[in-house]
Amino acid sequence: MIALASLRHVTTATLTTVLLKKGLRNVWLRGTKPLRAGQSRVAGRAFTLRFIPPREDQATPESWAKPTSTRGAIEAMPEGCIAVVDARGVSDAGIFGDILCARMQKRGVAGLVTDGVVRDVAGVLGTGLPVWCQGTAAPPSVAGLTFVGWQEPIDCGGVAVFPNDVILVDQDGAVLIPAALLDDVVTAAVEQERFENWIMSQVEQGAVLPGLYPPNEENLAKYKAYVAGGGK
Amino acid sequence: MIALASLRHVTTATLTTVLLKKGLRNVWLRGTKPLRAGQSRVAGRAFTLRFIPPREDQATPESWAKPTSTRGAIEAMPEGCIAVVDARGVSDAGIFGDILCARMQKRGVAGLVTDGVVRDVAGVLGTGLPVWCQGTAAPPSVAGLTFVGWQEPIDCGGVAVFPNDVILVDQDGAVLIPAALLDDVVTAAVEQERFENWIMSQVEQGAVLPGLYPPNEENLAKYKAYVAGGGK
Amino acid sequence: MIALASLRHVTTATLTTVLLKKGLRNVWLRGTKPLRAGQSRVAGRAFTLRFIPPREDQATPESWAKPTSTRGAIEAMPEGCIAVVDARGVSDAGIFGDILCARMQKRGVAGLVTDGVVRDVAGVLGTGLPVWCQGTAAPPSVAGLTFVGWQEPIDCGGVAVFPNDVILVDQDGAVLIPAALLDDVVTAAVEQERFENWIMSQVEQGAVLPGLYPPNEENLAKYKAYVAGGGK
Amino acid sequence: MIALASLRHVTTATLTTVLLKKGLRNVWLRGTKPLRAGQSRVAGRAFTLRFIPPREDQATPESWAKPTSTRGAIEAMPEGCIAVVDARGVSDAGIFGDILCARMQKRGVAGLVTDGVVRDVAGVLGTGLPVWCQGTAAPPSVAGLTFVGWQEPIDCGGVAVFPNDVILVDQDGAVLIPAALLDDVVTAAVEQERFENWIMSQVEQGAVLPGLYPPNEENLAKYKAYVAGGGK
Amino acid sequence: MIALASLRHVTTATLTTVLLKKGLRNVWLRGTKPLRAGQSRVAGRAFTLRFIPPREDQATPESWAKPTSTRGAIEAMPEGCIAVVDARGVSDAGIFGDILCARMQKRGVAGLVTDGVVRDVAGVLGTGLPVWCQGTAAPPSVAGLTFVGWQEPIDCGGVAVFPNDVILVDQDGAVLIPAALLDDVVTAAVEQERFENWIMSQVEQGAVLPGLYPPNEENLAKYKAYVAGGGK
Amino acid sequence: MIALASLRHVTTATLTTVLLKKGLRNVWLRGTKPLRAGQSRVAGRAFTLRFIPPREDQATPESWAKPTSTRGAIEAMPEGCIAVVDARGVSDAGIFGDILCARMQKRGVAGLVTDGVVRDVAGVLGTGLPVWCQGTAAPPSVAGLTFVGWQEPIDCGGVAVFPNDVILVDQDGAVLIPAALLDDVVTAAVEQERFENWIMSQVEQGAVLPGLYPPNEENLAKYKAYVAGGGK
Repeated sequence: MIALASLRHVTTATLTTVLLKKGLRNVWLRGTKPLRAGQSRVAGRAFTLRFIPPREDQATPESWAKPTSTRGAIEAMPEGCIAVVDARGVSDAGIFGDILCARMQKRGVAGLVTDGVVRDVAGVLGTGLPVWCQGTAAPPSVAGLTFVGWQEPIDCGGVAVFPNDVILVDQDGAVLIPAALLDDVVTAAVEQERFENWIMSQVEQGAVLPGLYPPNEENLAKYKAYVAGGGK
Repeated sequence: MIALASLRHVTTATLTTVLLKKGLRNVWLRGTKPLRAGQSRVAGRAFTLRFIPPREDQATPESWAKPTSTRGAIEAMPEGCIAVVDARGVSDAGIFGDILCARMQKRGVAGLVTDGVVRDVAGVLGTGLPVWCQGTAAPPSVAGLTFVGWQEPIDCGGVAVFPNDVILVDQDGAVLIPAALLDDVVTAAVEQERFENWIMSQVEQGAVLPGLYPPNEENLAKYKAYVAGGGK
Repeated sequence: MIALASLRHVTTATLTTVLLKKGLRNVWLRGTKPLRAGQSRVAGRAFTLRFIPPREDQATPESWAKPTSTRGAIEAMPEGCIAVVDARGVSDAGIFGDILCARMQKRGVAGLVTDGVVRDVAGVLGTGLPVWCQGTAAPPSVAGLTFVGWQEPIDCGGVAVFPNDVILVDQDGAVLIPAALLDDVVTAAVEQERFENWIMSQVEQGAVLPGLYPPNEENLAKYKAYVAGGGK
Repeated sequence: MIALASLRHVTTATLTTVLLKKGLRNVWLRGTKPLRAGQSRVAGRAFTLRFIPPREDQATPESWAKPTSTRGAIEAMPEGCIAVVDARGVSDAGIFGDILCARMQKRGVAGLVTDGVVRDVAGVLGTGLPVWCQGTAAPPSVAGLTFVGWQEPIDCGGVAVFPNDVILVDQDGAVLIPAALLDDVVTAAVEQERFENWIMSQVEQGAVLPGLYPPNEENLAKYKAYVAGGGK
Repeated sequence: MIALASLRHVTTATLTTVLLKKGLRNVWLRGTKPLRAGQSRVAGRAFTLRFIPPREDQATPESWAKPTSTRGAIEAMPEGCIAVVDARGVSDAGIFGDILCARMQKRGVAGLVTDGVVRDVAGVLGTGLPVWCQGTAAPPSVAGLTFVGWQEPIDCGGVAVFPNDVILVDQDGAVLIPAALLDDVVTAAVEQERFENWIMSQVEQGAVLPGLYPPNEENLAKYKAYVAGGGK
Repeated sequence: MIALASLRHVTTATLTTVLLKKGLRNVWLRGTKPLRAGQSRVAGRAFTLRFIPPREDQATPESWAKPTSTRGAIEAMPEGCIAVVDARGVSDAGIFGDILCARMQKRGVAGLVTDGVVRDVAGVLGTGLPVWCQGTAAPPSVAGLTFVGWQEPIDCGGVAVFPNDVILVDQDGAVLIPAALLDDVVTAAVEQERFENWIMSQVEQGAVLPGLYPPNEENLAKYKAYVAGGGK
């Protein structure tokens, strides 16, 4: 929980640099833009949902009343989770509209992240639920997708997401941290943020980039002195 | 005309649900986003225009003076229609700029919907014409398209549009209603809006989704009582 | 220099019409949208940068310290240039973040144009550097690209850009003028703007398009009289 | 079993016509071409496998020894089944090579169908296993995919496939029959083949198409007489 | 007719070089590969057909009996024409199968060219009709397309085709000659073939390319002497 | 040279497994299929060529006579090299036709690999030059590309290729070995081939996959005994 709280002060850009240094290059969920301009940063455990393509005998309005429905999935979401939805990148059928988003908001879901789209954008914005997606479309999910289950491993935006992995999402989109690496990654990310802030202050004072970013020995010493001096 | 007026109180999201129940899944025109944030909803009869790819001997600035030109098409548009333009999804040549949009606005055209792009976005916004498209580009239409006619069946955003079909367009994009189905669809859509508003009020009061949306017998009875009581 | 200054009063839409009349159809850099809404128009000489795909033995954080690095390229940029970056249309790795953009701004670079994306969008906007790109992503360049050099001929958004060609960029995106054609093109573009402004005034007074745009002999005479009268 | 045997005399083209008449339009698995020219038709129950994107901490050669591996899945395949693999359309990492295909052939698997690719094409052809895929690539699955399970609902080539649905595959690719519709569909398909053969014989004798295909009353009567006469 | 006959000795590659020299760059129909390996070259006048996307109320098996049907179009095709079909690049619904191709073959149609696909590939090959397309698929046209008319201007593979333009098609695909340019183009193409044959003979004798192709004055003189000597 | 000769007995599939174990995942050049069925395996040093998009003032038939032309590049190719051409994946303009391929064959070039296409496929096959590409098209390079130089770092099929890197290419396409890793990679690849051949022999005798591939301790011991016994 401490790790999750610390993450809220880390940008997704910094986080991807830290993950790359640990050998993880494919951690940014493509096609997950904030639906609302200026949406603030959110971190949470991934609660996964999975869709497959539509089949006229399966993807029907009647299917919404089946036990394996998006409705059932929503009632299983724990408070503070981030719903991560594999919509296979489908951009012409909205996975959720205002009613489902309103219920998620009521349940305390921290955010909705999908490589697909939502529908009734005015209504969804009205619920206040933080949403990251690739856009909006009017048609219902059953026009383009069949819901098949939750808390399974999924593909969201070309990234492998397992239940309970951690998601950090801000204006640059959503980044995944494998559950097993959380503590290591957060520690490194907090330090990386401090370092980049120092670099930025040097650039503002007119420093040239070669030798500074990444730092040569002279600049590294300068930074260490800055840290030793309390980072001011 | 009554139907068209009623449509302005229906969202495109609701409309697609109604059309799906009538067996029509492919009615949302892909790639038609509002050019202006907050653009209000518009409904009207489709007036179609058709482009094909450019050929250096045909798509020239000189072609703009031919009888079969976009200029001629605009002068044939009736007041209140929605111009629906098959630009074959071309995103690097703008079909219209400020001058043509200004003339459409003068003629009382209700809106412009295309799977292509417009050019001179500042100028087009200045005309006040409501526009839905996939974006903007600087080059003129002849750099990427040849105009071939109007009021023919077209493909716009992957949807078949016949002249005089009805178009409803809002922040979720543009949806087609086949001309023959207009009255049936509007009646059902108005009822669907009332029903979804009631569902939303239940969710706001904390109701869980399974059994509510879609409703089980108990909730259906509750809704019927609400309607019988005047829908308040 | 006079030509560059005059260009700031020409729209990219007008410029593409002028270039088309000179036989140049492929001059608009696809995927270069302004990062900041309302970004004003910029013109300058192109300073090119080139990336190729990543290779795990080359595209590493360590590579940032090599002589052939983006850092080196930035220090070679002259004041007033526009950095044009061939990112091969990669949309899941940001070519630059806040630190590099801050340094470019310090050096007086007039703008950054790329068919790729930037990272840390909040930070980049904070630097004030005018940026045109296809969007934003969190991962660093080395997650998806290898930097290989500057001031070479490049492909940016499907357009051939040679060092010192001229770039004009506004809300409709970026347009290239071959260096050898600059004076001719600017002269024609300024005249084209005056002509289109006159057309627009006629449309506002209710003129129909056929015979006006493009003009028949009668309207051409009317325009010539307007120009002879001082263009008022 | 009788139904499956009858299917081997039906083309996938005829089968899709029959399914369309029952309201199923999305039943053809995109990107499933025969690897061997002239590969003969195969029918069988679907045994599904599912991949998601690669993650450097998961998709490793070491993962091949895990219990949830493609090796485990192959040992669970019943004789006569068709392995249907959701490879998310990935075309630059082969899901299986010669060794895995050889083992499937040994186990009596009737065929392999995937929207991805295989690797070591010469070796795979050498095993004799009938394969339908979108092509070939040299890299191993872990370079582009992570295996996550078998006998789950999947997306293969944009079609929803549930375990034990029926697959028919020939030179036109793979078509799905929902398990519940098998008998109805096979009966209708066998009749449709007989009807189309009669039509073809009429065309060969010089008949014009309007009124013949689909038949008007006169031609329908002629066909019924042909059927009553023993279909000769 | 003489021009068409001469074209059969010209490659499409040579033809595109000749058209480029006349300013026409966009004349090669993308996605039109020969269905049969080794298919010989064909030339003819274009007879155009046009499809738009499917709509469940229009694209039905019943529509095949309407007056505006593919059946009607086929009966209107003159002997020796090439049917050029705008299928909007759709690759998951076959425009024609064996029955329609058999009828076209009976009517003496010289070839079928489309940016879409055919179905029942074995049956189509059996009819002997020369076909160029982007591949094959099992589903019928109504699963993905609605037929709307013939002998209209169309887009086929990104090229503008007007009725009665000329098409030449070989193993490199299909190339369009605008009807008005036929005689000029054929004369130049026959000469270009002779010239390239001479170049090839020089290369086979070990000549280096610079100065030969394109020729400098010395080589041009050598070629002229060759031509003057009867081209032997 | 010994390493290159040994490579001819290694499949590209095996090679990618070896490179993955060394941390290199992106080494297979997408879109490089053999032009001739059954083309045999080739290995050689990469000689790179680079194209950018066309510009009407640059990409002309006249440009073929410039010093920086494909003709000049071909005369600079050493015997035994593999020409690797960055055509930016363009599929509608052939980079080379029969004449240029004939000259390359004369110079002893071992093969041509490109992410683009060639033209005049019959003529190119006639030269005997081994070619890997994504297909064929009739138009000349200047219709879609501008040539800018040779022996520079390039992108071919999404892979970074530096001059003198090593390329191995067979029926599964082309794989890159960074020059610095050649000896290590070849040694490991030869061993990997021997190991996979042994696995295949076990599968043919009916062995199950789990525990065999990858091998558990028992099977590893069995393999070591096989190797110790001379690998027979």
